[in-house]
Order: sequence, then C-alpha cells, then structure tokens
Amino acid sequence: MRITVLSGGVGGARFLRGVRAWARREYPDGAGGSTAEITAIVNTGDDMWLTGLRISPDLDSIMYTLAGANDEERGWGRVGETERVSGELRAYDVGWPWFTLGDLDIGTHLARSHFLRSGIPLSEATARITARWDIGVRLLPVTDSEVETHVVVDESGTSQHFQEWWTRYRASVPALRFVQEGVESAEPAPGVLEAIADADVILIAPSNPVVSIGTILGIPGIRAALTAAKAPVVGVSPIINGAVVRGMADACLQAIGVATSADAVALHYGAKSSGGLLTAWLVDTSDAATAETISAAGIRTVVTPLWMRDVPTSSQLAADAVAAAG
Amino acid sequence: MRITVLSGGVGGARFLRGVRAWARREYPDGAGGSTAEITAIVNTGDDMWLTGLRISPDLDSIMYTLAGANDEERGWGRVGETERVSGELRAYDVGWPWFTLGDLDIGTHLARSHFLRSGIPLSEATARITARWDIGVRLLPVTDSEVETHVVVDESGTSQHFQEWWTRYRASVPALRFVQEGVESAEPAPGVLEAIADADVILIAPSNPVVSIGTILGIPGIRAALTAAKAPVVGVSPIINGAVVRGMADACLQAIGVATSADAVALHYGAKSSGGLLTAWLVDTSDAATAETISAAGIRTVVTPLWMRDVPTSSQLAADAVAAAG
Repeated sequence: MRITVLSGGVGGARFLRGVRAWARREYPDGAGGSTAEITAIVNTGDDMWLTGLRISPDLDSIMYTLAGANDEERGWGRVGETERVSGELRAYDVGWPWFTLGDLDIGTHLARSHFLRSGIPLSEATARITARWDIGVRLLPVTDSEVETHVVVDESGTSQHFQEWWTRYRASVPALRFVQEGVESAEPAPGVLEAIADADVILIAPSNPVVSIGTILGIPGIRAALTAAKAPVVGVSPIINGAVVRGMADACLQAIGVATSADAVALHYGAKSSGGLLTAWLVDTSDAATAETISAAGIRTVVTPLWMRDVPTSSQLAADAVAAAG
Repeated sequence: MRITVLSGGVGGARFLRGVRAWARREYPDGAGGSTAEITAIVNTGDDMWLTGLRISPDLDSIMYTLAGANDEERGWGRVGETERVSGELRAYDVGWPWFTLGDLDIGTHLARSHFLRSGIPLSEATARITARWDIGVRLLPVTDSEVETHVVVDESGTSQHFQEWWTRYRASVPALRFVQEGVESAEPAPGVLEAIADADVILIAPSNPVVSIGTILGIPGIRAALTAAKAPVVGVSPIINGAVVRGMADACLQAIGVATSADAVALHYGAKSSGGLLTAWLVDTSDAATAETISAAGIRTVVTPLWMRDVPTSSQLAADAVAAAG
C-alpha cells in the first residue's frame, strides 16, 4: 500500500508519526499493512536563507519527530537543544535576534546548505540528511525551487517573509494576502508527481490550510495531479471545536476569506467530484454539526476524535483516515 | 608611535598581546607610549571554506587571545568551548571528521561567511567582527583575496590544503613545496601597504617563517613595501634553543631548505642593508652562539629571553623588540 501525505510542520509531523505507527501495526488498533510505503510531500514555503544557512522548518520538524529527536515538551526543535551559536551571532549583531537557532539544529542547516551549495537539489539533500535516521517515511520537499511565502501587509504591497510575520510578529499584523515568491518558474521536486499518481491513498495532514497545504497546492502541477489521481484524497480538519489546534492559522484563513471552521476549510479544499480535492474529510466529534454541510457538498464526512494527544491517538486517527478512503 | 606587526596565529597572538601590554604600560618594564597604534598584518593562507563556513584560523586566534576569550590551557580556540554542531556534522557525514569546530567558534565563522557572501571583503568583515571586543589592535588580513596555502607532497604535483597536511597528517607527509593558490592575482588588503609605509617600527612575530610570515611575504607588493619602508624591521626568532617552540615549523623549514636554527631563519629573511628584510633580530639567550653569524650578515642581533611564558614576559619581549629598532 502506498500512502502519500501532504504535510506542513509540527501538526503534520505528529500526523505522520501516527501514520507510520499505524502502518507498522504498532498498536492493536492499527490494522494496516506493515509493507505500506509512506511518502510525505512537504511544504517548503517557510524556508529561508538566514546567515548563510538554508532553513527548512517543516522538513526538519518532521524529520526530528519521526527520528524521536524532537523536543516533545516545547513542541518544536531538537530535544536537549542549546543556543550557544545563536548567542555568538547576537554578539556579532548578525542574523535575526528574534529568530534563535539551536546548536543541533544548526548542524542540520549547515549540512543542508553545504549540499545545496554543492549543486545538490533540496530533494536529494533531504534524502542524504534523513538517511542518518531510520525515519520510515520518504520526505519529499514539494519543490526544489526556492519558493518562499511572503505576507503582504499593506495596500502598497509591502511584504514580510512568512517567518518574520509568524515568528517575530506572531501573526498580529493583519495579512492582506500571501505571495509565493518565485512560484511561476517552480516545478514539483522529482518524485512528487509520481507519489501523487501512484498512491493508493492520499492524505492531507491537519496542517495550516493556507501557508502549508495552500503553498503545496500553489506549486504548478500539484493541484492538477491531485485532481487527476486515481487515489481517494482524505483530509483531516486542522480545526477542532471551531478553533485552530495550534499556531495562528486563523489569521491565515481570515486573509483568504475562509472561516475558522471544519466545514469552511473542507469547502475551501472542495469536493473531488466537483473538481476540488477531497474524497473524504475527517471532523472532530466536537464539530459533528458541520458534517451535514460538508456531506452536502459531496465530500464523505467522518466524525471521529482528531486530537493527537500521543502516538496511539495519532495512530488511530491515521487508521480512521485510511478507512475513510473506502 | 605606530607599530606594525606581521603575524601568524597562536605564537603571533601571544606576541601581540605582549606588544599591547607594553604599549599600554601594563607592566613596570613597559616604557613605551600609551598612544601607540598597533596594526597586525595577518596571514590568511591557512584560511579555507569548510561546510560553507569561511575559516580564518590566524585572525581568530589573535582576536580570541586579545579579547581574553581564548582557551589558554589548550592553546587554541575559545575558552569554555563545546562541539555540539560538529557532532551533528559528523552524524550527517559532512565536513572533515578530523577537523572539529567549536560551537562558539562556528558563531564567528557564520558571521564572517555571512559578511563575505554579502559582498563585504574580509578586511571589512574582520573589522566588524573584532568590533565586538576592545582588542586594542587593528587586525588586517594580508589580503582580501582567497589565497590558500597548499602543500605539494609528490613529484607529480599532488597537493593538500595546508590544514589537511598540518591538522590531519600532523605535517608527517614530507612536503616538497608550498604553493599559494591564487596568489598571482592577489593584492594586499586595504590599509596593509599604508601600515607598512607609515609604521615607526615593523615587527615580525615569532611565527612560522614559511607558512605564516612566508605567506604574507608572498602576496605581491608586500616584500617591496617592507624593503622600501622607512621603519626598521625587527624580527623575533621562532626558534629557541635550536628547536621550534610549538607546531611543526621544522617540517616547513626543511621543505624550503632552511635549517631549524635562529641564524638560518634570520639569513632566510635577510639583512635590510642587503635587500632583505631585517634591521634587527632577536635570538634567545640559549642561541647566543648564533649571534655572530647573524651580525656578520649585517643584521643587528639582540640576545634576550624569547620564551613568552605569560603576559609580562611577552610584554618584556615586545619592549626588547621595539628597543632593538634603535
């Protein structure tokens, strides 16, 4: 069985850990095949160059989480992290003082930047970097091109890199729209279109629908590949009980005129039967009232607990998602 | 009073600390002026790009030492250093496993590399980096060009970067000759020729005569500026009691056919009166027997203790060197 997952960072990482646990039959409830091949197509819109380092937050969040090297308590980065290099950069007045990189994390960025400067594309660099760990999931950046998300914050077109808007200003500056700088000439990375076309089931992780999944969908060729795919596409709502689970996705949804609700996000993705993406959509039990609207749009709706408290609950969610594919 | 010092790394750093202490009258024996301007012209032949980081060992050794941030016990690098980033690089199989960079040190390299990639030349990058500390000495890389020392190790011309030969093989592979890659098109960095022409005294630190001082002298224009300088040139022997003080300078001297002795190195530099460099040369009391040969060549010879045990002895050595200028 081939499972392809569209994913952002932290939430997507937890979901992928659940998919892997389910595929490996790590829990009694997991009834999938141990031979499942899992591929993640990962958002790279948050990526950036900072002080000569290429930073790929979503790829790294997923890798660290699947490697068991993530800081579970803090929710991001490496466990046992220190910030000695960043302290030096601040002393030299270099970089963004509000964006602190951990030392272990800098090791990853140095390795990646080294590969990229040697002419190795991001997809191959990612393969080399993840090879260090047995993560059990093939990580594909959605594109090898540098397509970075910028946030337009005023009518004259002033924009900020997504990381600045998100991390420095905590999404408090109203976003007018999101722009994918350089998207026109971008192509899906090698393997991405095949992973969509050859999948038995395609899952959309409960990631930010605008700047994570939306950025993936914005790469030319991706949306068409998804609508043409033979596999059912099952999405997991990132909205639980009418609110975002983490992060500030509501500020992003507001900018594109989509309400922060499980049904609004489903309708934003659209029904596969009507030229949209979704075959099925998982909503949390707290959002059961939204099911009717979603079903009416031609999207099979499954009401089930979505909260990924730990690996067993994430594994159960993955099982539900695969089951929803029918 | 303007003092210009030609310098390599660790030994040069200790010497410069002594020159500064003397200039600041930090010790009773120091009778110099507190208004002395000290400029160091620093070897950059050991520099290299490693994993996207521009490493300038001699500039950093001097900066750390003058900043009091060096590891006095180990003899190089930052005090309280850790190696967490390098551990990651090894895990990713990136870089040179035999060349370990400290975390604090990587902060310096990241800042420098960031400046260089922004189009800022090394001399200006060095000014920005050293501005963090009150080091009291102007550090000038001898050139802004990337001129790296390579070591030819066999007749067919096979060569290694100096760092590989020195750090990995501990100078155990016989060197046939040293090559300055890219030297043809190199120029002295801004301020270097002026620092030589305007100096009241020029000192040659007890650094490696071949790959530190020799590399400085190899940059087009430097040797001519030194022979044309109005200031006396005073050298301090890096050989004490017929042996190298630290490092493996004897392997370097052997490659260029110079004996490891205080007089052989002096004659290698040559007398200013005969078109060479030296007005005066300081030899250690243990090498007093060499004084006659050196004097006979037209170089004023001063026999005095050269061992830089601590800052006071280094300060005294600086006082002796300035006094030798006459």
